[in-house]
Amino acid sequence: MIVVLRQDTKPEQMDNLKAWLHSMGLETHVSVGHNHTIVGLVGDTSKIDIDLVGSLDIVESVRRIQEPFKNANRKFHGEALVVDVAGTKIGGGNFQIIAGPCSVESREQVCYVAECVKKSGAGLLRGGAFKPRTSPYAFQGLKGEGIELLEEAKAHTGLPIVSEIMNITHLPMFEHVDLIQVGARNMQNFDLLRELGKTNKPILLKRGLANTIDEWLMSAEYIMAGGNENVILCERGIRTFETRTRNTLDLSVIPVLKKLTHLPVIIDPSHALGYAHMVKPMAMAATAAGADGLMIEVHNDPPHALCDGAQSLTPEAFDDVAKAVFQLRPFACKYE
Amino acid sequence: MIVVLRQDTKPEQMDNLKAWLHSMGLETHVSVGHNHTIVGLVGDTSKIDIDLVGSLDIVESVRRIQEPFKNANRKFHGEALVVDVAGTKIGGGNFQIIAGPCSVESREQVCYVAECVKKSGAGLLRGGAFKPRTSPYAFQGLKGEGIELLEEAKAHTGLPIVSEIMNITHLPMFEHVDLIQVGARNMQNFDLLRELGKTNKPILLKRGLANTIDEWLMSAEYIMAGGNENVILCERGIRTFETRTRNTLDLSVIPVLKKLTHLPVIIDPSHALGYAHMVKPMAMAATAAGADGLMIEVHNDPPHALCDGAQSLTPEAFDDVAKAVFQLRPFACKYE
Amino acid sequence: MIVVLRQDTKPEQMDNLKAWLHSMGLETHVSVGHNHTIVGLVGDTSKIDIDLVGSLDIVESVRRIQEPFKNANRKFHGEALVVDVAGTKIGGGNFQIIAGPCSVESREQVCYVAECVKKSGAGLLRGGAFKPRTSPYAFQGLKGEGIELLEEAKAHTGLPIVSEIMNITHLPMFEHVDLIQVGARNMQNFDLLRELGKTNKPILLKRGLANTIDEWLMSAEYIMAGGNENVILCERGIRTFETRTRNTLDLSVIPVLKKLTHLPVIIDPSHALGYAHMVKPMAMAATAAGADGLMIEVHNDPPHALCDGAQSLTPEAFDDVAKAVFQLRPFACKYE
Amino acid sequence: MIVVLRQDTKPEQMDNLKAWLHSMGLETHVSVGHNHTIVGLVGDTSKIDIDLVGSLDIVESVRRIQEPFKNANRKFHGEALVVDVAGTKIGGGNFQIIAGPCSVESREQVCYVAECVKKSGAGLLRGGAFKPRTSPYAFQGLKGEGIELLEEAKAHTGLPIVSEIMNITHLPMFEHVDLIQVGARNMQNFDLLRELGKTNKPILLKRGLANTIDEWLMSAEYIMAGGNENVILCERGIRTFETRTRNTLDLSVIPVLKKLTHLPVIIDPSHALGYAHMVKPMAMAATAAGADGLMIEVHNDPPHALCDGAQSLTPEAFDDVAKAVFQLRPFACKYE
Repeated sequence: MIVVLRQDTKPEQMDNLKAWLHSMGLETHVSVGHNHTIVGLVGDTSKIDIDLVGSLDIVESVRRIQEPFKNANRKFHGEALVVDVAGTKIGGGNFQIIAGPCSVESREQVCYVAECVKKSGAGLLRGGAFKPRTSPYAFQGLKGEGIELLEEAKAHTGLPIVSEIMNITHLPMFEHVDLIQVGARNMQNFDLLRELGKTNKPILLKRGLANTIDEWLMSAEYIMAGGNENVILCERGIRTFETRTRNTLDLSVIPVLKKLTHLPVIIDPSHALGYAHMVKPMAMAATAAGADGLMIEVHNDPPHALCDGAQSLTPEAFDDVAKAVFQLRPFACKYE
Repeated sequence: MIVVLRQDTKPEQMDNLKAWLHSMGLETHVSVGHNHTIVGLVGDTSKIDIDLVGSLDIVESVRRIQEPFKNANRKFHGEALVVDVAGTKIGGGNFQIIAGPCSVESREQVCYVAECVKKSGAGLLRGGAFKPRTSPYAFQGLKGEGIELLEEAKAHTGLPIVSEIMNITHLPMFEHVDLIQVGARNMQNFDLLRELGKTNKPILLKRGLANTIDEWLMSAEYIMAGGNENVILCERGIRTFETRTRNTLDLSVIPVLKKLTHLPVIIDPSHALGYAHMVKPMAMAATAAGADGLMIEVHNDPPHALCDGAQSLTPEAFDDVAKAVFQLRPFACKYE
Repeated sequence: MIVVLRQDTKPEQMDNLKAWLHSMGLETHVSVGHNHTIVGLVGDTSKIDIDLVGSLDIVESVRRIQEPFKNANRKFHGEALVVDVAGTKIGGGNFQIIAGPCSVESREQVCYVAECVKKSGAGLLRGGAFKPRTSPYAFQGLKGEGIELLEEAKAHTGLPIVSEIMNITHLPMFEHVDLIQVGARNMQNFDLLRELGKTNKPILLKRGLANTIDEWLMSAEYIMAGGNENVILCERGIRTFETRTRNTLDLSVIPVLKKLTHLPVIIDPSHALGYAHMVKPMAMAATAAGADGLMIEVHNDPPHALCDGAQSLTPEAFDDVAKAVFQLRPFACKYE
Repeated sequence: MIVVLRQDTKPEQMDNLKAWLHSMGLETHVSVGHNHTIVGLVGDTSKIDIDLVGSLDIVESVRRIQEPFKNANRKFHGEALVVDVAGTKIGGGNFQIIAGPCSVESREQVCYVAECVKKSGAGLLRGGAFKPRTSPYAFQGLKGEGIELLEEAKAHTGLPIVSEIMNITHLPMFEHVDLIQVGARNMQNFDLLRELGKTNKPILLKRGLANTIDEWLMSAEYIMAGGNENVILCERGIRTFETRTRNTLDLSVIPVLKKLTHLPVIIDPSHALGYAHMVKPMAMAATAAGADGLMIEVHNDPPHALCDGAQSLTPEAFDDVAKAVFQLRPFACKYE
């Protein structure tokens, strides 16, 4: 960490600062210039509150050289993490497609979709039981019953199941969920993250709509600091001014994260883009860039046209996407 | 609501759609053009899931004419809402400054600041007890003890108190908090909003970092749909590409919200901007534009420079801001 | 185009509006509801000024159903456009890599790089002669001399050359430039676009830092409306809040543009991301998603480390990227 | 400027770097830590190309301590700049309202509006003759004839005139324009800026839609580096995800710019917000925050409703805004 002091800093203020930094176990290197004094901090600065330092009267600016996360940091983990989700591996060369309906609607629906996506090569089944909806009047999911239907589909197909948690009091209902998803809107629900850090469940952490990659990794750090190291990161688009896509899918997170962290990175093109016709090219792009997996919405072929979600693929369309993805996978970008 | 259908919609698909809309109590007006068919929906569309309609195969686009919120809608409330916070009124011509420390640190600190801000004209005392922090290693607040210290400051000065809730299980600790704040990161923590809708506490709902005004009002609607109509909206800056300010303070929410809703609107320049020297001009701007109040961070004069938060004002600086604001207030923009 | 009128519109105002619309050759379909009156416009609305309509007193809102661009519109062009750049084809199944240095620095540099990238499979040579720089004190390019050096490299290797124009008065210097680039900062320099529309040179139009896809296509329309139909679109990243990459590369433009327009789409990962290590995965992603080409910065191996641009690849690194891209290309997403 | 070197920097690379920096007249202070080596640069770094330094192989990161602009820098100018526009002063305590139509349409229109706004207290007349339009099919302005009509209105009322230039070849037509406006889309048209720097006309420089404050000041620096020091900065809204306003008006530029530069700052609420009903509160907010002036669109009362621009005020509404603004002005925030 480098701290630049204001020109008018008095010697006793500087001494106070140094004493305080030393009390936190850090060494200081001071370099006095004509206009500015620079203090370099050496030691474990990952636990320093950069806002507090930056807010000091005598500090003109402060910046990190080391990243503020440790458990999630690639530097301290030689190898890419392989997360084992009920026997299905993700990361470290293990590529998986997580597929299934946005919302669990009925036993028939979820079992049918589960069979279809398994046949096409998906490794995990997703399904929403608790749905975060912008409007209090929109369908909020089947809740506990939805989880039970997912468990039936799991019993039926053997696919591990993935579902979103919105509230820590619901944790007991997730006992048989194999991979617990934290949605974009809860990426900085710190109390929820902390509690999930005390469980031994793999966690799929989606990036918030307007969160930086560093904030995302700090949220992973919340979970990992509690002892749960099995975190998978999932990009699902960020909010920009563009209106032709629901969000802007930021695929550059793949090389950025591969450098910063050892955690697996998966991409959700369905939520990011909002239109089915964009899912295939973006799923292929994510695969080529070296993602560890994909999350794709698939909905059963509807009896009438009324519930064919614009962003969901039919099982047939998903099969086409999966084929294209698996064909590309051997040529995907690799990270040492 | 206007639904534009694709050119290739078949008559039976159109009939399905109409039947479905009628079953929800809506009337439909169909207008057939050369290239498109337009269906106008008449009736209470506030409870229609626009995403579901937009996702139908046969729908090219859909847009609302009516707002999707009803409880928070100005059209259904003749007069501006006056929220009574333990006897102190906000809204409908009642202007209040909420002031106090970012974090409650000690009895001395919070009581001293409370006395100072009261003397300068603040009507409510703020203080953080549960602090949402990006890093798990940063100070997370005094928690329950912080709330108790706020209650002591209230007993001492008579100022109603405001503090942030992060987790619905903490609600019992907020029994004596007069105005419960929902922070920006929890603006779409829908389970929290729903539970707060069942209480009779006034709620201060901050805008999320990347949320639209419509999403903000939908979050107010979540609270109000549960029966709690006492919601105050608080703008605290949105995330943009600009780096000279922590966030971009969007003061245009004042005229936008005054047209859309009857709820009071207050502005928090301290969090929005992140630097003390910008608080005064932006507090004055918000006042002139007709805000119903301000939320300003004030910290006691520190014994040494080490904890003088860059965005906090000293009590003396706050007094100067308050004087300027109260001097402007009679000339502020008024909304019918 | 659908125009929603305010509830209080008087019959004579409505008649005025209809007369005005008819005078522009449009038919109107009026649908009167309980709360709103909707006017559907039928005919060629691409030349209607939507802002003017939206600004009318009696209009509540207006939205297009047809796109406001015609020359650039896929609907009016059965087949994907193939742009012929001095014999090298781009688009319609023809994939090209444009490579070369950010700035032309010397004869040796540009000829050496040109030979290298040709050997690796690049189809065109890029090089900046006029450089748009944020600071007036930064290097502004070799200007006319830079163009001449590019021409020498072309004579040497046979590669067609690409360079950026910043000012229409420079056009005579671009006589032997095969593909003229309009940079992101000039995407809405409408006078420049209009003049380029009068030439017969292929134009490479970069997307502005904060421009929507529709605005981008409208800028292409400016060029095409003048009679020059040879426009290639190039995505180079948009501005967001993320700081780990210089810009956010928006690869979803590929499927969006493939649906909206017949113009070729190429991707520039070098400028978008700003770091060499991200170029390979993002070049691979763009290829997999079905881009018609790539633009990649390559700099000669520097005699000392002082000018190795962080975003530029060495010829060796470029060769590695090109191999990976050409290997993927047969499996890339195809658009009918 | 602080340069952080990579851990594996070799001594001879470091020596190369130091020699190169010394050759540019800078002193270097090297501080070697366990993990990083920090080089502090002392001297005039305003003319250093930070991108070039950051792109060196051995550099991990680089950041400025000094601002990269000098002519526009407050530190080198004791007093706020007063710009004299044909006898009308702006800045340094001189507050002006610039008002007039978006586009000049006719002699009657512009003379009538000019008289009205003069009567209400406006100090300058604005009017668009060359209009930057997103669509090539939209009205592009009366061009040279529009400028002549403005000159007539000036002769009629004595108000200095303001109009936008889009192309440096038009400069001769602007001979009698008193304040030349550079629009948001041309803020980084560096060739245009450079040429305007060679004139002796006051320049009104609008902020680009997605430009940082630092980039804006660098564009002012382009003009000033040429010898023309009379630059006025004008905020007109930035692009965000919010759709209830056309752009997001960033009023915090006022305190930020008052600290960084001595140039006057004016605010254009009409273009920023896009709706007439928001102009008054935002004009009042800007005034209270200490802006040096306002730019407001005013359109004559239309014979029929067809051309009443949604963002334009009628002369009566403008008179109401002006009264409110002049009433507030004595209480506005002051900057030393």
